[in-house]
Amino acid sequence: MLTPPASVGTVAPQSLRFREPLVLASGATLADYHLMYETYGTLNAARSNAVLVCHALNASHHVAGVYADDPKNFGWWDNMVGPGKPLDTNRYFVIGVNNLGSCFGSTGPMSLDPTTGKPYGARFPVVTVEDWVEAQVRLADALGIERFAAVMGGSLGGMQAIAWATRYPARIAHCVAIATTPRLSAQNIAFNDVARTAIQSDPDFHGGDYYAWGVVPKRGLRVARMIGHITYLSGDDMAEKFGRALRGKAAGDAYAFGYGVEFEVESYLRYQGDKFSEYFDANTYLLITRALDYFDPARHHGGDLARALAPATCRFLLASFTTDWRFSPERSREIVEALVRNGRDVTYAEIDAPHGHDAFLLDDDRYHRMVAAYFDNVAKEVGA
Amino acid sequence: MLTPPASVGTVAPQSLRFREPLVLASGATLADYHLMYETYGTLNAARSNAVLVCHALNASHHVAGVYADDPKNFGWWDNMVGPGKPLDTNRYFVIGVNNLGSCFGSTGPMSLDPTTGKPYGARFPVVTVEDWVEAQVRLADALGIERFAAVMGGSLGGMQAIAWATRYPARIAHCVAIATTPRLSAQNIAFNDVARTAIQSDPDFHGGDYYAWGVVPKRGLRVARMIGHITYLSGDDMAEKFGRALRGKAAGDAYAFGYGVEFEVESYLRYQGDKFSEYFDANTYLLITRALDYFDPARHHGGDLARALAPATCRFLLASFTTDWRFSPERSREIVEALVRNGRDVTYAEIDAPHGHDAFLLDDDRYHRMVAAYFDNVAKEVGA
Repeated sequence: MLTPPASVGTVAPQSLRFREPLVLASGATLADYHLMYETYGTLNAARSNAVLVCHALNASHHVAGVYADDPKNFGWWDNMVGPGKPLDTNRYFVIGVNNLGSCFGSTGPMSLDPTTGKPYGARFPVVTVEDWVEAQVRLADALGIERFAAVMGGSLGGMQAIAWATRYPARIAHCVAIATTPRLSAQNIAFNDVARTAIQSDPDFHGGDYYAWGVVPKRGLRVARMIGHITYLSGDDMAEKFGRALRGKAAGDAYAFGYGVEFEVESYLRYQGDKFSEYFDANTYLLITRALDYFDPARHHGGDLARALAPATCRFLLASFTTDWRFSPERSREIVEALVRNGRDVTYAEIDAPHGHDAFLLDDDRYHRMVAAYFDNVAKEVGA
Repeated sequence: MLTPPASVGTVAPQSLRFREPLVLASGATLADYHLMYETYGTLNAARSNAVLVCHALNASHHVAGVYADDPKNFGWWDNMVGPGKPLDTNRYFVIGVNNLGSCFGSTGPMSLDPTTGKPYGARFPVVTVEDWVEAQVRLADALGIERFAAVMGGSLGGMQAIAWATRYPARIAHCVAIATTPRLSAQNIAFNDVARTAIQSDPDFHGGDYYAWGVVPKRGLRVARMIGHITYLSGDDMAEKFGRALRGKAAGDAYAFGYGVEFEVESYLRYQGDKFSEYFDANTYLLITRALDYFDPARHHGGDLARALAPATCRFLLASFTTDWRFSPERSREIVEALVRNGRDVTYAEIDAPHGHDAFLLDDDRYHRMVAAYFDNVAKEVGA
């Protein structure tokens, strides 16, 4: 086996089809859809040790381990989920699910619309965080899980965990929401909108129906990803990683005096943009950034977050990172304060880490020890 | 007269042609070029009251007043420059100059290359902050100004003021550098590079030679401007101005569930992007952002800014704004510290203002009173 000993090892994605129509927040209906998912560990006899892991913008159901035919492609949270890891698959039955509208196998804009026999494209409905939770509830039903030991996620994944806590309080014992926010700021929305504008104004976008033209709006996707990437890193982290280093040159070498790649940071960003544009679907980018924009549980409670979170009865672990300027610690503190006002049991950690928003995906010792300790206690409680 | 009483009133741009070849930092030569400029106030007999105002990315020689045929188009720093204003044109002779490579009349990528009879386009050489200073020196010579009472600018304009101080110490009595930085950070460069990538990947860019095709890479320019705009404002300022307000709707109204303009902030950014793409030249955008990237006076002094600034003998006024995350107060403080180490006379103000980087262009009372007081003292010294 090529995988390190602490990995869950070789895993296989699974698919479940749902034929009961799903009415979305927009009023649109998905008559028929399927969800890709993976599981790690074993569901105990009491069915009390299941943990749902929700993904953020560009991730998927592939949370941990590798595929037999792709032994280097580790799941996106492999450092968090596995035997002996903070979310220990020796004790927990962990589920990763690809959200509706994503481009990694679950029904989305690239899927064939059964009513036309062609890809949905621009006709795929806008999906919200709450819609994802509804779809995940059906997956839980199908897997025979009445109550999760925890629903967990970072960033957009944390929003889903919070939506679970308020919409299905009886079905979740713990909500673990990392580096998240109760709503996007104007600046967050602005960055999303520039990314969408870049995609929508790419001539290869064809109003979202590029599949029919055999093209992909790669130029727009590339720019979208570059913008996103800047917001995932902290300014200090970029300074530390790249500074003003020139690509392939020493510090004092002459500039090239051109508009190609001159600085290391340009090379890195363009590479990230290129890579992303090779595998990510542009319609999915629009859909998921819009789901981010729309999430705002306090919206129909006069902006009162405590009232919005009042239905939640589970316990909470929240964590934020000091250098995360995308979803800053202030945003997590708002959630904590709202929960405390509701008399909820909340553990909150503000972790001093240099890596900006991306920190939630990285292997930081204090962060991981804190999550591990939390899940240790959960295990005692739920008998995992 | 339609202009407010405190404006310099109607002004007229002027043009000067320079036939002595200008060797640029890149090694390229401009054999022949002209500069657009404007002047306000009167040069005194001693020629001691001249102030040069340097512009930033998207501004020009039109610093103050209006044109007879365009009475609403006030200069970009009209709140700073005029009779009774902080830079008082009753006392000072103020010069605004459009930099080489810009798109407001000075020789740039849109100009005809005399060797081909066609627009320079991609063949227009990369120009640096130091090159601009060299061109400005020739303008000063032509106008008979041996020594400026002050060279002043904000952002990229501040970089030019600093380059004047170090390259022509005998020709500048005061350097006024607002909201500037001794070098762009990796994050700053990254934002510039995303903007350039958006322009370069617009199919209408044609490698910089779009003039020949009769098109303009408006889509790329639009995205570039949207990105830039986000970095000019503070997050708090955007929250204050736009929050999560929906365009044309009340707070609790249903979302549109689409990818068009939904939030006010999107409407604002797209409008700013559209407007910009109507008047700004894409090649100029590349050129000026690259000049920003390249500015780094400490580069050939082992990163030691004090050594780089050692030739400067003038006095300095520096100011920064607390919410400017593009060129933060820390960057201004670096300059102040380097100057203090050199024993220079520096006045520095860190102004508590909510408007981010854009604050340098706005009419903030504390800021303007501070600049006015500084120029009062300069006037006594130089006999203005």
